[in-house]
Amino acid sequence: MAAIEHPYLMFLGDAPDQLAAKTAQGVAHWRPEWCLGQFRMDGCKADLGLDDMTIEQAAKAGCRTVIVGVANRGGVISEAWTDALELAMDLGMDLASGLHKKLGDVERLRTAAERNGRQMLDVRHPTRDFAVADGQKRPGKRLLTVGTDCSVGKMYASLAIEAELRTRGLKADFRATGQTGIFIAGDGVSVDAVIADFISGATEWLTPANDDDHWDVVEGQGSLFHASFAGVSTGLLHGSQPDALVLCHEPTRGHMRGLPTYPLPDLESCLQQNELVAQLTNPNARTIGVAVNTSALDRDAAKACLQEIEQRLGLPTVDPVRDGVARIVDQLT
Amino acid sequence: MAAIEHPYLMFLGDAPDQLAAKTAQGVAHWRPEWCLGQFRMDGCKADLGLDDMTIEQAAKAGCRTVIVGVANRGGVISEAWTDALELAMDLGMDLASGLHKKLGDVERLRTAAERNGRQMLDVRHPTRDFAVADGQKRPGKRLLTVGTDCSVGKMYASLAIEAELRTRGLKADFRATGQTGIFIAGDGVSVDAVIADFISGATEWLTPANDDDHWDVVEGQGSLFHASFAGVSTGLLHGSQPDALVLCHEPTRGHMRGLPTYPLPDLESCLQQNELVAQLTNPNARTIGVAVNTSALDRDAAKACLQEIEQRLGLPTVDPVRDGVARIVDQLT
Repeated sequence: MAAIEHPYLMFLGDAPDQLAAKTAQGVAHWRPEWCLGQFRMDGCKADLGLDDMTIEQAAKAGCRTVIVGVANRGGVISEAWTDALELAMDLGMDLASGLHKKLGDVERLRTAAERNGRQMLDVRHPTRDFAVADGQKRPGKRLLTVGTDCSVGKMYASLAIEAELRTRGLKADFRATGQTGIFIAGDGVSVDAVIADFISGATEWLTPANDDDHWDVVEGQGSLFHASFAGVSTGLLHGSQPDALVLCHEPTRGHMRGLPTYPLPDLESCLQQNELVAQLTNPNARTIGVAVNTSALDRDAAKACLQEIEQRLGLPTVDPVRDGVARIVDQLT
Repeated sequence: MAAIEHPYLMFLGDAPDQLAAKTAQGVAHWRPEWCLGQFRMDGCKADLGLDDMTIEQAAKAGCRTVIVGVANRGGVISEAWTDALELAMDLGMDLASGLHKKLGDVERLRTAAERNGRQMLDVRHPTRDFAVADGQKRPGKRLLTVGTDCSVGKMYASLAIEAELRTRGLKADFRATGQTGIFIAGDGVSVDAVIADFISGATEWLTPANDDDHWDVVEGQGSLFHASFAGVSTGLLHGSQPDALVLCHEPTRGHMRGLPTYPLPDLESCLQQNELVAQLTNPNARTIGVAVNTSALDRDAAKACLQEIEQRLGLPTVDPVRDGVARIVDQLT
């Protein structure tokens, strides 16, 4: 996959509700300066709060890429969208999609891309070839977010940490490993979609040698304690050679996501196991903080939860949304 | 990938030395009854000790599949082989290859396969779709070989254990996870070639529900301590839900294969870490023996090595080639 050129037009199509536009919402939240407008069709029930634009207006406003950041039944490109997406390429814009089905599998879109020399990027489908990981230490510093489970706020915490580092004038880059993150970074690798032999190799590619005082903030995926996806998490830990780990958690979840009989690991075991695996490729890896998604708790309960974890683990513990991540970033500087 | 029909003709082509036919040799060693003959061209320096056959003789003898179990520079199908491989399909045989490049990428072979309705199987390239692992306990027992490193004898140990179980009249199936193993089993999954999200799901598929007294003997891959491939090893541990682990080791290796700066893990740490990971999906997982490849040691040194490991770990420790695996299988019955 080549890099995605911005600014973006956010394509919401006929999204039946706000949840279907969750990916687009993440992009608009973290890169408002890249999102010039939104395109909504009749019946669209999602709204990013951006200016509504026609395809023609978007092209005229300077949008370079139309981001199809909307969920759809079966992950397909709806026929109802094709006219607009074709027109976008005719007017000189690229397409980038986070759907399972590839843009190029739609004949009319493939033809339009060829006719106009436009690129169509499917961010779920890595197209680069990666080398097998060599495990060699490389300059630059790296932070990886890890979690007790999937979908506990690893991407949000990573982006908040990148933003806080940059606010302090430090060199930092968010490194995206999932579809929403890739739209936000403009580049990245869906590590869960690479061939198994190359998980850590793809991660090494994603986090290359850099200045000694530069931080790569790497978006974690899955969990070492998730029976379906721990292989991906393992490869990320080895390939990113993290100096710093941030443990992410959602305190009200009753079981591992998608696995009703699997309880969440306790935080101590999770921390210890992640450090152990990380230390294979970076013996200095250590956990520097805990990011807790307390959105399901009221303010008092959230505060108590954070305090309890902070005391138990002896690490700065924050809700990135409620409190920001300054106390975690303090550990890096 | 569909199952590979036997009996086989072993295709050695113009293999420059015996090592280039290592895969074919493994198949001939473990499934002599399936290997009716070998096909060698001018200049072939490999020999499996099977009857030499022409393609016509092989077809007449009842061979169902030609096994291209030979290494080649770049993993490609040599042009010099095409006449023979095309003829094989014209005479009603299928092809199965362990090379990186796909048989179907050779136009003449693709055409011949279509013309004759034959199948061409590339065992390195899984073509089935796998589900995400569900982590649910299923009936039947499973043994997984794990290792301190890649290429320490996991396949050999697994096959020896399957053979010993069957000799004792017990129900057992070797479950192949690499190319040589797949030729030997006639089916399997190259787990290192599946999409990262499906490593453990593919392993669950490979080791399905079975009789309560049936053993799946699962071929391990890589090592939890290999910085390039530990993600694959992790998915295998979770997906196979092993009741029993057998730890495989090569005592003279100076560093992890392909990673000159990485020492091998000590056996205790390796055992402990594999049990810990395995116990996520099977809390009863335990190591029942150690299989050591002592081929680089003389008889006395080998004996001393095995004794020392056996005392240290308190587990039956054997060289499967020199001693057989009866003492390990005793632990299962």
